[in-house]
Amino acid sequence: MTTQQTPHQRKPLPPGFLDEVRAAVGVRLHTGKAILLQHGSSETHFDPVFPDAVAFAHSTAEVAALVRLCIAHEVPIIPFGAGTSLEGNITPIRGGLTIDLSEMNAILEVHHEDLDCTVQAGVRREQLNDHLRDQGLFFPIDPGANATIGGMASTRASGTNAVRYGTMRDAILSLRVVTPEGKIIRTARRARKSAAGYDLTRLMIGAEGTLGIITEITLRLHGIPEAISSAVCSFKTLKGAVDTVVQAIQLAVPVARIELLDDAQMRASNTYSHLNYPEKTTLLFEFHGSERYVQEQVETVRTLAGINGGGDFLWSNLPEERSRLWKARHEAYYAAVGQRAGAVGWTTDVCVPISRLAQCILETKEDLATSTVPATILGHVGDGNFHVIFSIDPNAPQEMEEVEAINDRLVHRALGMDGTCTGEHGIGMGKQRHLVDELGDAVDLMRLIKRAIDPKDLFNPGKIFQL
Amino acid sequence: MTTQQTPHQRKPLPPGFLDEVRAAVGVRLHTGKAILLQHGSSETHFDPVFPDAVAFAHSTAEVAALVRLCIAHEVPIIPFGAGTSLEGNITPIRGGLTIDLSEMNAILEVHHEDLDCTVQAGVRREQLNDHLRDQGLFFPIDPGANATIGGMASTRASGTNAVRYGTMRDAILSLRVVTPEGKIIRTARRARKSAAGYDLTRLMIGAEGTLGIITEITLRLHGIPEAISSAVCSFKTLKGAVDTVVQAIQLAVPVARIELLDDAQMRASNTYSHLNYPEKTTLLFEFHGSERYVQEQVETVRTLAGINGGGDFLWSNLPEERSRLWKARHEAYYAAVGQRAGAVGWTTDVCVPISRLAQCILETKEDLATSTVPATILGHVGDGNFHVIFSIDPNAPQEMEEVEAINDRLVHRALGMDGTCTGEHGIGMGKQRHLVDELGDAVDLMRLIKRAIDPKDLFNPGKIFQL
Repeated sequence: MTTQQTPHQRKPLPPGFLDEVRAAVGVRLHTGKAILLQHGSSETHFDPVFPDAVAFAHSTAEVAALVRLCIAHEVPIIPFGAGTSLEGNITPIRGGLTIDLSEMNAILEVHHEDLDCTVQAGVRREQLNDHLRDQGLFFPIDPGANATIGGMASTRASGTNAVRYGTMRDAILSLRVVTPEGKIIRTARRARKSAAGYDLTRLMIGAEGTLGIITEITLRLHGIPEAISSAVCSFKTLKGAVDTVVQAIQLAVPVARIELLDDAQMRASNTYSHLNYPEKTTLLFEFHGSERYVQEQVETVRTLAGINGGGDFLWSNLPEERSRLWKARHEAYYAAVGQRAGAVGWTTDVCVPISRLAQCILETKEDLATSTVPATILGHVGDGNFHVIFSIDPNAPQEMEEVEAINDRLVHRALGMDGTCTGEHGIGMGKQRHLVDELGDAVDLMRLIKRAIDPKDLFNPGKIFQL
Repeated sequence: MTTQQTPHQRKPLPPGFLDEVRAAVGVRLHTGKAILLQHGSSETHFDPVFPDAVAFAHSTAEVAALVRLCIAHEVPIIPFGAGTSLEGNITPIRGGLTIDLSEMNAILEVHHEDLDCTVQAGVRREQLNDHLRDQGLFFPIDPGANATIGGMASTRASGTNAVRYGTMRDAILSLRVVTPEGKIIRTARRARKSAAGYDLTRLMIGAEGTLGIITEITLRLHGIPEAISSAVCSFKTLKGAVDTVVQAIQLAVPVARIELLDDAQMRASNTYSHLNYPEKTTLLFEFHGSERYVQEQVETVRTLAGINGGGDFLWSNLPEERSRLWKARHEAYYAAVGQRAGAVGWTTDVCVPISRLAQCILETKEDLATSTVPATILGHVGDGNFHVIFSIDPNAPQEMEEVEAINDRLVHRALGMDGTCTGEHGIGMGKQRHLVDELGDAVDLMRLIKRAIDPKDLFNPGKIFQL
């Protein structure tokens, strides 16, 4: 459906390959159509593309064995977690073997006293937080979807808490990786910091599986704060809401979450999540800290909101209420896409310096006013990151073109402000042109690294850039 | 002097090379012995090695021109900032051209409202903070020495504030780099986060100039806190001091600085910096925040110190007093080395998970008790990072051997605790064996990257690993 895909060379699997895979993983090798479709589909507008086979791995050693088989037979190899990525990041465009890591879902170690843990790549973030809760710990990175930690590492995910706690780049201490040579390496030790050679950890984070397969992750954790308060505040104007955010960030108020949903998104979310909020531009806040410190943060932000045309703060201090609020936020994508029955979604993902955020959002809102495709705006605005979610009629090809043009204009608006084409979704298949627009010759350096590490171009080929 | 150096191939400069360099930088090309010695010496125990020539660059374009000359003539090229590194990181062991960036010291842009700035690589951290002070901003990374920002980036420096504000890894938004192809790239935009392809920013940070030359750095800044309080607290025992730190970190008290100096270091610092503190294990604290929030942090830490045998907190709330205190901390290395006239220094640099810190320091202190070489312990203990500073008689070769053995035991003690051989000094020449002990096959992946990016091995050759 998307016009951004280009045809890719696809070779049949070599004879005997599947027998060798079956010898390695037994009944966990699948070639049935339903499972192939599931591993070639996406949450957004990319056409499904089937892998040739799917193998469910149960250990790092098994992944390494599968990698060695794929290398020997020159078969493309695609790591797969929860399949929640948004830029076609796990689409097997040249076929090959998808290695599904979702059954590698053991939480291997929790070092309570060091505030860290080591998990297998298939652990999902909600599972991890359920496990940690009794120990008074939590893992803050929250991209919305209940993604796997491995997938989140591979796309350098972030989400609602990043303004306070950073992104996957900051959250990871160390990785275990199966390299394209079939070796198992550990990228770092468990120390909080290190100056020991090249930062392979950060090189693998955000590499979208093109440089190796992440099988284990050591994560930084945080103590559950003594006090957590959530609030909802509606604004007279979009500008007033954005200005409130910008001023809070400039005053260095350590808000844990500060999310913007525009009027259209509030309408969609009210319907989808059975809520009853005013259908105006809205900020959702979460404050973490000691009782006194949370109170201090709240006072500052409430004052800023008042100055900028914000209404009363509606509080959600009970855990159930908070869950309901943030569940609605997590459902926002489905709410936005689901405005039209049978629609497919497309979400943009720019991030700009905070001083340019108001202008970027307001110009985008103006641009959307001319569009025939329903669209909402929401974002992790404390970072300068926001999304437009389009609800596209799959039977109206001009809608896809229209959205592509709006997205192009948005990306170039953000680049013009020294921003990025992707705050957290990655490049995948969808943003390869934009990556070049953003970083120019630096992309050649990425290609050089890719060719050196994966000379046969077998690891998630065709992603991030064309070689 | 050190036994860790191995002989290196050193070729004479090709005929005509210096004429071409002189055509590029004019009188800023130097071949006088004094300046060569200055660019081949180190703050620690490595023997001086002369480069063939030193060129002072004044712009990124000039650096690129010099790089292209060096590539064409296959001349090694060593970037140089302030020369404050501690592992022989800038020693020109194969000769060649040292490019001194210290005159590229312009602060190019300060984006007050975005809390970031862009500086040339030769800007020093004190210069930057002097410039920022009037705008209510500061750059927190403080390795002690008044290093250049480019050098700090290249060694992934951190220091006293890292426990609260992170390391150079966290502090940098984007780099301008001259690659070994002679191209000028920018590794990222100015957005707070991005998922746009491989993290070239982090790859260059800590690469010690082996993958290219950093010429400009975009840094995250912080607002100067409303309240800053510094305190000094002596402890009955080393263990009590370390336990205080560990408990404060586990309670997630956001202390801005928490530095440990053992009794020997306090003795040396009292002498060197004309102070009069008790010569017992001491913690230096700094707290940042609002008045109320600082007070809350102080209460918690004071309670912990009391439980662990700490004495009264001696406060330094006036800026002059604070400066005096932290000046003494910054002079600690020179104080420790200067215990013996004419001595040379050697500093270790392990970092371990915080739960292992007490054991690691106590075992190290025991080990030092058997040594004939004067030694002190100090560290950025909130991160699990500490140093032993030896004061070595250069005319007693057995002292160097003794220290090397102690350092070896210390590194392996830290590795046994899943720590790292270097928290912040880098690998340079001194820790290449230890890097392999720490990361095994992952070092091969580093070599692969180095060979791909710098196939002629011209960029700061012989550092981090042998190719």
